[in-house]
Amino acid sequence: MSNAKESEELLTQFLEEVWNTGNIDASDKYVASKYTIHDDPGDPWEGQELDLAGYKERVRVSRAPFPDQCFTIQDVLAEANRVMITWLWTASHRGDIPGFPATGKNVKMSGATVYYFDGGRLTGHWQITDRLGVYMQLRQGMAGA
Amino acid sequence: MSNAKESEELLTQFLEEVWNTGNIDASDKYVASKYTIHDDPGDPWEGQELDLAGYKERVRVSRAPFPDQCFTIQDVLAEANRVMITWLWTASHRGDIPGFPATGKNVKMSGATVYYFDGGRLTGHWQITDRLGVYMQLRQGMAGA
Repeated sequence: MSNAKESEELLTQFLEEVWNTGNIDASDKYVASKYTIHDDPGDPWEGQELDLAGYKERVRVSRAPFPDQCFTIQDVLAEANRVMITWLWTASHRGDIPGFPATGKNVKMSGATVYYFDGGRLTGHWQITDRLGVYMQLRQGMAGA
Repeated sequence: MSNAKESEELLTQFLEEVWNTGNIDASDKYVASKYTIHDDPGDPWEGQELDLAGYKERVRVSRAPFPDQCFTIQDVLAEANRVMITWLWTASHRGDIPGFPATGKNVKMSGATVYYFDGGRLTGHWQITDRLGVYMQLRQGMAGA
């Protein structure tokens, strides 16, 4: 039903509304009833199939230490049922994560994600993030605290 | 000149011939005279613009510790001038890298790359790899040695 441009616009709105603004219940508009995290090293939900409640919980837990986080799309290639993006992420580290008590430090990360669509809803993703880069920044933040 | 399918096939051949097989001089057929590494955290050449000799040196140095390395394309989205892939990488750790003397251990990694084309030649890339995952595997290899 949807074409490449529509899928790209849907993904852009989803990232802005749900992940950047933190309107977690807006997931209802974007996320399918089953959402599969195919590959996402370091993500606690990697390999899982989430229902909508599970997906919202993932957003909530992921955003909690970084409440002002912002994903900026760097590049995009879109088909109707797959949209691949590279992105930059910035955030300040306001809450504890395992091994890293809140540092207040501004951190940034880059990553790439393929989002899968079916019938205008997101059904899963395959993602790589430079998690080592974030750990290195947080470690510096702790040393400097 | 080239379309999406041609660019995808060119990239597949390039990865197989140059990076997997290690026929480094075959870079002449695929790589432009200027190749820019836009973003590639952990890559020693990140941010640099390489000439063909510099590109070949990068392949040589990168492959040396992992001579049997193999990239397998997992997913691909192609346009004429951009091809985005997700990939899996396997290798055995046969040579020293900074901080990690050769362990002999089999390691694997996932990553995503956008390759840029112009006139049927590769002009650069934007890449994310799960380098932390590799370090964790190598550290286990050293502990178990």
